[in-house]
Amino acid sequence: MTEDERYMQLAIQVAELGRGQTSPNPLVGAVIVRDGEVVGQGAHLKAGGPHAEVHALRMAGERARGATAYVTLEPCNHHGRTPPCTEALLAAGVRRVVVAVEDPDPRVQGSGIRRLRAADVEVTVGVLADAARRQNEAFLHAARLRRPFVVLKLASTLDGRIAAATGHSQWVTGPAAREQVQALRRRYSAVAVGIGTALADDPRLTVRPAGVPAEAVRQPLRVVFDSRLRLSPDAAMLREPGKTVIYTTQAGLASVEGRDEALAARAEVVAVAADAEGRVDPAAALADLFTRGIDSVLVEGGGALAGGLLGRRLVDKVVWFAAPKILGGGIPAVGGLAPAHMGEAVTLADVEVSAAGADLVITGYPRYA
Amino acid sequence: MTEDERYMQLAIQVAELGRGQTSPNPLVGAVIVRDGEVVGQGAHLKAGGPHAEVHALRMAGERARGATAYVTLEPCNHHGRTPPCTEALLAAGVRRVVVAVEDPDPRVQGSGIRRLRAADVEVTVGVLADAARRQNEAFLHAARLRRPFVVLKLASTLDGRIAAATGHSQWVTGPAAREQVQALRRRYSAVAVGIGTALADDPRLTVRPAGVPAEAVRQPLRVVFDSRLRLSPDAAMLREPGKTVIYTTQAGLASVEGRDEALAARAEVVAVAADAEGRVDPAAALADLFTRGIDSVLVEGGGALAGGLLGRRLVDKVVWFAAPKILGGGIPAVGGLAPAHMGEAVTLADVEVSAAGADLVITGYPRYA
Repeated sequence: MTEDERYMQLAIQVAELGRGQTSPNPLVGAVIVRDGEVVGQGAHLKAGGPHAEVHALRMAGERARGATAYVTLEPCNHHGRTPPCTEALLAAGVRRVVVAVEDPDPRVQGSGIRRLRAADVEVTVGVLADAARRQNEAFLHAARLRRPFVVLKLASTLDGRIAAATGHSQWVTGPAAREQVQALRRRYSAVAVGIGTALADDPRLTVRPAGVPAEAVRQPLRVVFDSRLRLSPDAAMLREPGKTVIYTTQAGLASVEGRDEALAARAEVVAVAADAEGRVDPAAALADLFTRGIDSVLVEGGGALAGGLLGRRLVDKVVWFAAPKILGGGIPAVGGLAPAHMGEAVTLADVEVSAAGADLVITGYPRYA
Repeated sequence: MTEDERYMQLAIQVAELGRGQTSPNPLVGAVIVRDGEVVGQGAHLKAGGPHAEVHALRMAGERARGATAYVTLEPCNHHGRTPPCTEALLAAGVRRVVVAVEDPDPRVQGSGIRRLRAADVEVTVGVLADAARRQNEAFLHAARLRRPFVVLKLASTLDGRIAAATGHSQWVTGPAAREQVQALRRRYSAVAVGIGTALADDPRLTVRPAGVPAEAVRQPLRVVFDSRLRLSPDAAMLREPGKTVIYTTQAGLASVEGRDEALAARAEVVAVAADAEGRVDPAAALADLFTRGIDSVLVEGGGALAGGLLGRRLVDKVVWFAAPKILGGGIPAVGGLAPAHMGEAVTLADVEVSAAGADLVITGYPRYA
C-alpha cells in the first residue's frame, strides 16, 4: 500500500461515518496531510451541511498551506447549498489533491479537477477508486442510470424457501440476521415489498434501533408494489412513523371502491404504467421513486417482486440470507421466471460470504445472462 | 492442548491416510511415544491388513517397552482376520494406552480396555473423542444403527433449484465443486440417485481421478432408487467398472416386460418393500445395503429421493453445494414434503462453510423437528 493509498484508505473510513445520513448526497471523506502527518480530516454528514473538505480544512487551519488533500470524491466546483470546495482548497493553499473517483453529478463531472489543475494544484485521480466506488455504489449508480440502486434482500432456507405453503415464515433466519436487516434498512433510502409479502407478513418495515423510539430515527420510505390495491388501510406499516408509497395501476385504482381513499389517508397511492400482465411495471415505479430523491431501494421480497425485478435486470445488488435449514416445500424465494436452461441463471459476481449467527449472508452483484 | 491431545491429534492425522480404503473397517491411527519422542506410528489401511497398532509396534520395536500408545479407536480384543491388538500391546510391554473412543463393534465394546487394565496397563479413554468420532462418523453410525450412514449431497442455486423445468442442469456448480464431488465418492462406500436424476442426467457415478483409468480405482457401489424400473439397460452407469444395484418394488418388477432381464445382465435388480405411495421404501433399501457391507451412502439427489429420505429422518449428514446464482424457476432441490410451518424445517447443526471455486459448500448434521 502506497502512502497515497494509506491516506485515501483513512479518508474512505472517515466517509463511512455519514452512512445512511447523507442521501441524496454521497458519502465523502477528506484527509489533509502535511509532512507525513494528518493535520485535518472531515466527513460529509448530512445534505445541506458542510462538505468533507470544508471540515478538514477548518481542522487543519494554517497547516493546510502546502499540504496534500485526499478526498474520496472529486471536489465540487459549483455553488450548491454550500460554496465550491475547489475554491476552499485553493484559498487554503493546498498544493496537491488526491481524488479517488470523479463525481458523476452533471454539475461536476471533472470540472472540479480541471479548476484545481488550472490553478497549478497537482491532482492525482483514481487512488483506491474501486473501494471508493463501492462505498458510494448507490449514489454513483443512481447518478448514472437515473433510477434508484436496487438491492434485493432475501432470506431463505438452503432449498430456497421463504415460507411454508401456508405462508408461515417466522422465522426463516435467526435474530442476528434480522438485526442485519435492520442495519440494511438504515443504509438505503427506501424499503419495498410486494403485496403478497405485505399481506402474508404485515411487516412494519421500520428501523427500530434498540432503546430508541422509531420516531427518533430517519425511517426509510416504505414502498408497496400493489397492482390490484389489496393492501389493507389497517396494515401495520401504515401506523408507523415515516411515509409509505403504494404503487398500483389504473386498473387497480378502478377495481376498488373506497379503499383507495382510506389508504390515501395513510399513504400516497400512485398509479403507474402496467406491464403486459397488468401488474405494476417495476421500471415505472423506480422512475417515480427517483423523482422523489430516492437513490436506493432495499427490496425485501417476496418471490414475485424479486422475479419481476430480476427478469427485467433491475436488481443491482443481492443480499441473500441463507438459513442452514431444509424445508422441502413451500414458497420459493424467487418466482415467476421460467428458464429453460441453467445458463439463464443470474450469476452473482464479487461474492462475499459472512455469518449472521447460524445463518449465512451472501452478497453479490448480478451479471445477467 | 495437552501432551495427550497433541499425540492423539497426530494419531488422528495418521488414520486419515486410510480414508476411503478401509471399509467396512474404521479408520484407525496409532502413535507410540516414549520419553517425549514418537517411536512408532501406524494406520489401518485396508480391511484384512494389519491394524494400526501392529504397524506402530513394529516400527517401535524394543522402544515400545514402557511406552505410551495413542490409538484413535479402542484396540480389538478378539481374533478376527488378524490377532487381537491388546495382546500385541501387552507383548510389546506398552505401559500406558490412550484411547479416543470405544469401539462399538459388539465383539469389542470396552473389552479391549478391560483386558489392558486387567494386565495393569494404565488406560485413558476419551482424549479428542469428538474429533475421532467425527473421523469415523460413518463407521460408528453404521455400527450403532445397523444401517448405512446417509450423506445427502445436493448442488443448487441460491433459490434452491437443481435444474431448469426442462431438466437442464449442466452446470449448476463449477469445476471445483464437481471435483469435490469426486472426492466425496471416494470417501463413501456407495453412491445413490433417484430414477428422475438417473433419467435426466444419465450420470456415470464413478470415481475418475485425473490420469487414472476408472478400472484402476475402487468404485463405490452404484445404487438407483427406481420404483417402476424405468432405468434403461443402456444407461451410462451400467457400462462403467464396478457394480450397480437397482432397488425397485414387486409392482415395478411386474410392470415391465423383459426390461428387468436386460437390466439384470448389467446390474443387480432387487425388489424391496414399497411405501404407502408404492415407491421403494428407503429404509428397506438401506437395510439391504447394510447386509452387503455398505456402511455409507452418498445420495446425489434428485429432489424426490432427497425429500423421501429427509421426511423419514434417514439423512445423517448434508453436503450442500450452493452456486451463487438465481434461476427463478425450475426443479427444487428437495421435493415431496409439505410443511405447514417453518418450524418443521430440518435444521443443520455443526455447520461448516467452505469455498469450492465460486461455489459454497455447506455441511451439517440434520436435527429433525
